[in-house]
Amino acid sequence: MIVPASESDGASIVAITAEAGVFTAQEVATVEELWAECRRHGEKVSGYAFRVYREGETVLGYTCHGPHGLAKGVYDLYWIATAQAARRKGVGRALMANAEEEVRRSGGRLILVETSGTPAYKPTRDFYLSCGYEWEATIRDFYDIGDDLVFFTKQV
Amino acid sequence: MIVPASESDGASIVAITAEAGVFTAQEVATVEELWAECRRHGEKVSGYAFRVYREGETVLGYTCHGPHGLAKGVYDLYWIATAQAARRKGVGRALMANAEEEVRRSGGRLILVETSGTPAYKPTRDFYLSCGYEWEATIRDFYDIGDDLVFFTKQV
Repeated sequence: MIVPASESDGASIVAITAEAGVFTAQEVATVEELWAECRRHGEKVSGYAFRVYREGETVLGYTCHGPHGLAKGVYDLYWIATAQAARRKGVGRALMANAEEEVRRSGGRLILVETSGTPAYKPTRDFYLSCGYEWEATIRDFYDIGDDLVFFTKQV
Repeated sequence: MIVPASESDGASIVAITAEAGVFTAQEVATVEELWAECRRHGEKVSGYAFRVYREGETVLGYTCHGPHGLAKGVYDLYWIATAQAARRKGVGRALMANAEEEVRRSGGRLILVETSGTPAYKPTRDFYLSCGYEWEATIRDFYDIGDDLVFFTKQV
């Protein structure tokens, strides 16, 4: 079941992000900041909508999406992560489909995802491609020398 | 003379942005927001450094730059604009050189500029190219259908 995240889901969201293994401590801290912004100001004002995939009491994964400032109908998928124990069960795919459906219903036309071009992120990039995203643009050496920023987009 | 903007420069910064003619009301409002953030929290915390080109008491142009989150040594040039009356006098070029020098001194290695791919922005794109920026990436139909997002980069 995919539902808006509630107050008590914060710890799970952070834990799932940390255990993903690809994110730096600074990136995990960023998720915590977005979560805090969302709790403090609400989804509308903060622009960060957190959704969780819940099985009973357990959170198996989450997404965070929101409108991109100054771009008509464009939404960012800021975060998507699935618990290690729930991999290869379609949780990520279901979360992705849900975010796309929400964007569509909000009048969005394009979803933008930013990720890294390093080998460690190949499974991530393959996941986006398999979800129908296009490798739209690359900024070389962005995150660091040898670590490109890759933009994936999907029209929804 | 290029100096850090002071409290009283806010009105000039907003006026120069508005008279540029290419920015929407929403974009002008964004400059006001960044300026307010900078005044409220300071340059370091807000991440927005405003510099003005001053001739006597008059502001002829400004830039706003700051570090890009999660990317090592990358700085965004958020805004650069020159007063209509001061065009073609090297004000923009001097402001650009100053921002690049500041980024370099802060340990930055790459400057990122986002602009539009529409004909109205051709003079802007030509300006970046003439300053040594590379057309690095394009996200089609980003700002709107037929209005691409273009990224320019320069290693400093």
